Amino acid sequence: MPAHDPVVDSPEPLGRRERRKLATRDRIVTCAVDLFASRGYDATTMEDIGECADVARATVFNYFARKEDIVLEWFARRRAELAEIIAEAEQQTTDTASRLRRALGGLARLYEADPVTVRAMVRAWLRAGGPLLRDGSDAPAMLADILRSGQQQGDIRPDLDAARAGLLIFDAYFAVLYRWVSDEDGSFALDENLLATLDLVLAGMTRGSSVECNPAAVRP
Amino acid sequence: MPAHDPVVDSPEPLGRRERRKLATRDRIVTCAVDLFASRGYDATTMEDIGECADVARATVFNYFARKEDIVLEWFARRRAELAEIIAEAEQQTTDTASRLRRALGGLARLYEADPVTVRAMVRAWLRAGGPLLRDGSDAPAMLADILRSGQQQGDIRPDLDAARAGLLIFDAYFAVLYRWVSDEDGSFALDENLLATLDLVLAGMTRGSSVECNPAAVRP
Repeated sequence: MPAHDPVVDSPEPLGRRERRKLATRDRIVTCAVDLFASRGYDATTMEDIGECADVARATVFNYFARKEDIVLEWFARRRAELAEIIAEAEQQTTDTASRLRRALGGLARLYEADPVTVRAMVRAWLRAGGPLLRDGSDAPAMLADILRSGQQQGDIRPDLDAARAGLLIFDAYFAVLYRWVSDEDGSFALDENLLATLDLVLAGMTRGSSVECNPAAVRP
Repeated sequence: MPAHDPVVDSPEPLGRRERRKLATRDRIVTCAVDLFASRGYDATTMEDIGECADVARATVFNYFARKEDIVLEWFARRRAELAEIIAEAEQQTTDTASRLRRALGGLARLYEADPVTVRAMVRAWLRAGGPLLRDGSDAPAMLADILRSGQQQGDIRPDLDAARAGLLIFDAYFAVLYRWVSDEDGSFALDENLLATLDLVLAGMTRGSSVECNPAAVRP
């Protein structure tokens, strides 16, 4: 995360001008999210967003060159939250699998607290190009770092390609998120499915947890 | 796969009328794919597709109620090819991991043979809703069936939830496909990355292959 990322709090106190700029930026993002949720991404124009945020269309463009950049900012804010959840999980748990379970479980609870917004933003992200956007997401790298710590700690396979494994966990997580977003009747539990999928992925990554070494534990 | 799926060859000889309908259907799909590749999905209308296929716009709608149905038909044809590759792999290999490697490797070769079309169709699929489309894909179920055979055969963990594992392999495969589609400079090798990811997923699913049972094999 860059030191002056607008998403995270700056350690230095901000001047009045900077505070006002951040407030305008926040208002633009909030308005865009509300409009994407109510009208859909395609039907929302930069003009609509400016009107809602009480700024000129040109001002919206000063903050976000393209409409998709607002979507990416929203996801960057979620990643900042993920980083916080990971930092907490690192203090509270000792083994790597539990850390990852806490990280994804925490994200699931965050999403389940505001499903309308999250569903709208995932839909918006897909309309904007979705997995084909080069958004420079550092979420797979964050997950890879957790796995690398686990390799040093000794509970993750030393021969594991941590970068590829971080991508796999991220991809599996996103695929479950898609299923939750497209679940119209709300019967698909995000946290339960995320954790079950994570366990499936982790089964090949952890040391000592493999059922193969203790067949008696799984055979009826 | 339903018995009378237009995608697979019918065992009974077709009448002239049926043959002509299938030929028109094929022409519509071919034209749509070409137009999606050259103009993009959004910029292609059903009228454009009809003009190219030498039929009226209304005729296109008779075959495909929505533009996205043409995209889904194209992917259904790829799944029919996957089913053929799987059937071949089942005759040629004895262990489940090799079968899955052959299935995904075969699909990768198919895609790498015509990257322009495949990239255009993945982009079209995403524009049409992508992972949120309820396309009734049976690819995860096909993969789950391979895993279930492996459980009977004894080289896949008996406690594995085959349905969830089939989904995970499918999701991991699709995420790698996205990366290949968005790789502008062509340096991302589809087959190599697909197989490395598959191996990572399979590490937690197979019996006896786990490095945990033979730590000496992986420690330097």
